[in-house]
Amino acid sequence: MPQNDLKALRRMDFEYTLPYRTRWSDNDQYSHINNSIYYHLFDSIVNTYLIESCGQEPQKSPSIGLVVSSWCEFFAPLSFPDILDLCLCVKKLGKSSVTYEIGVFKQGSDSPAAVGGYTHVFVDSQSRQSTVMSPAVRRGLEALLVTVTGKL
Amino acid sequence: MPQNDLKALRRMDFEYTLPYRTRWSDNDQYSHINNSIYYHLFDSIVNTYLIESCGQEPQKSPSIGLVVSSWCEFFAPLSFPDILDLCLCVKKLGKSSVTYEIGVFKQGSDSPAAVGGYTHVFVDSQSRQSTVMSPAVRRGLEALLVTVTGKL
Amino acid sequence: MPQNDLKALRRMDFEYTLPYRTRWSDNDQYSHINNSIYYHLFDSIVNTYLIESCGQEPQKSPSIGLVVSSWCEFFAPLSFPDILDLCLCVKKLGKSSVTYEIGVFKQGSDSPAAVGGYTHVFVDSQSRQSTVMSPAVRRGLEALLVTVTGKL
Amino acid sequence: MPQNDLKALRRMDFEYTLPYRTRWSDNDQYSHINNSIYYHLFDSIVNTYLIESCGQEPQKSPSIGLVVSSWCEFFAPLSFPDILDLCLCVKKLGKSSVTYEIGVFKQGSDSPAAVGGYTHVFVDSQSRQSTVMSPAVRRGLEALLVTVTGKL
Repeated sequence: MPQNDLKALRRMDFEYTLPYRTRWSDNDQYSHINNSIYYHLFDSIVNTYLIESCGQEPQKSPSIGLVVSSWCEFFAPLSFPDILDLCLCVKKLGKSSVTYEIGVFKQGSDSPAAVGGYTHVFVDSQSRQSTVMSPAVRRGLEALLVTVTGKL
Repeated sequence: MPQNDLKALRRMDFEYTLPYRTRWSDNDQYSHINNSIYYHLFDSIVNTYLIESCGQEPQKSPSIGLVVSSWCEFFAPLSFPDILDLCLCVKKLGKSSVTYEIGVFKQGSDSPAAVGGYTHVFVDSQSRQSTVMSPAVRRGLEALLVTVTGKL
Repeated sequence: MPQNDLKALRRMDFEYTLPYRTRWSDNDQYSHINNSIYYHLFDSIVNTYLIESCGQEPQKSPSIGLVVSSWCEFFAPLSFPDILDLCLCVKKLGKSSVTYEIGVFKQGSDSPAAVGGYTHVFVDSQSRQSTVMSPAVRRGLEALLVTVTGKL
Repeated sequence: MPQNDLKALRRMDFEYTLPYRTRWSDNDQYSHINNSIYYHLFDSIVNTYLIESCGQEPQKSPSIGLVVSSWCEFFAPLSFPDILDLCLCVKKLGKSSVTYEIGVFKQGSDSPAAVGGYTHVFVDSQSRQSTVMSPAVRRGLEALLVTVTGKL
């Protein structure tokens, strides 16, 4: 992934945004948000969107999304008690999988502190075998799909 | 601690409030916010207040607060993606120690889902020996002190 | 809880022990294990025992234990990469509830760095209404019951 | 990164191994270790090695490693209370940066459940400007360097 392009992303390049407070224990002993925490935040915005805008119910839906691959590039430190904007888009959408991209912005800053993402493969919630995502999930994810025309 | 009284606490019984989003990984395999997470939230509201309203700088202040004792009573389950109101007051204020009480409310609910707290002892940031809290911290904490006249 | 007595506890005062490695992110910006982490460790030794010695299956058992109250007293700092001994006993055992006590020892140290615990109330895994614990769980917990004859 | 090759990695492809217990709260509501937790584990084995075998002291060393990029591929679910073997090697070693690769194996299983890694850039601990790693760190990391002759 070309780091320069990612660093140039702005909030408007993403379709869905949530503000998130950091927590005291997000800071590790280097007094900045630990790299692992960004993945907790990715999970939080993705699943909030799936639950609130795609009708997913983690304990009841017949198909659920499992993470098969994840990545993150870190550009600038963040530190509790920073308040963050998490910004989500969909980069790639298949029948049974979706790749998300998330920008993490400090409130008041135009440049992302980090950009990362992951791929969900949808599986049957009982057998955990690959399956197609539900129509409601697909519609919801399509609304976040970034149709790229050059930049990336 | 008398559980009945704690359950009867309302937002107005606390002096300082912050809204906090839950995270996907706050839910454990019983699909509710894990008991340990409440303590992460306690740390977050206490330290946000110390930093933003009491002039504390965790990496620079000569005295810092260390937790010597903590507790929590759980009344009702919470679950991601609930949004919470964390509500803080000071129950006891000494020269070198302070005992906080925190109510955790689901947004839209009058009754606390949990009430807990902890005692900070202030120590010299280098030697970690007990010391008096700074005048700015004391002033800030006094503003949250609940002067009880019967109820609890 | 009388802090002095707790501090005097030794490994032999507990019935079940597990060694546990700390993690980088357990340390907060004060470079010691954050107070919240101890509760994650309590959950880990209790549930390991319930699963491995009491036949509990968190996703299948008809009754599960939910935490209704927890507490911890901190005596000495711990810091990654310390390796810990977690030591568990049962202080109180009812038909539908159990109170655990856990000592946290740094390997090589006789005195506990912290002692805490919590109360599990057993509930029906579906309705989440209070119920009696299973006979297998009760037998397993009885084996950890400390019958006190003076010291505490 | 070619997923097939990573899945074929075995413990002997790594130079340094630590056993690690999982924790109750590592499992998310899908009853498997949450994807974010793997990054906490990566941090734990890397920093244990830096501290115990490379003379790093996180609070005192003049240069520290900050994560600028991380990634992970997930092949099979893990679940508390699984005990894991974390296996570490160095894939790329520069003057001021190092790229680690970590295999996560369930004890008793030959195939990795996940393989991931990250790149540390060494910076001055005060100014946080890029700097060369210390000779002791470089020697320590060289000992984990995998000199590849075809396979990957």
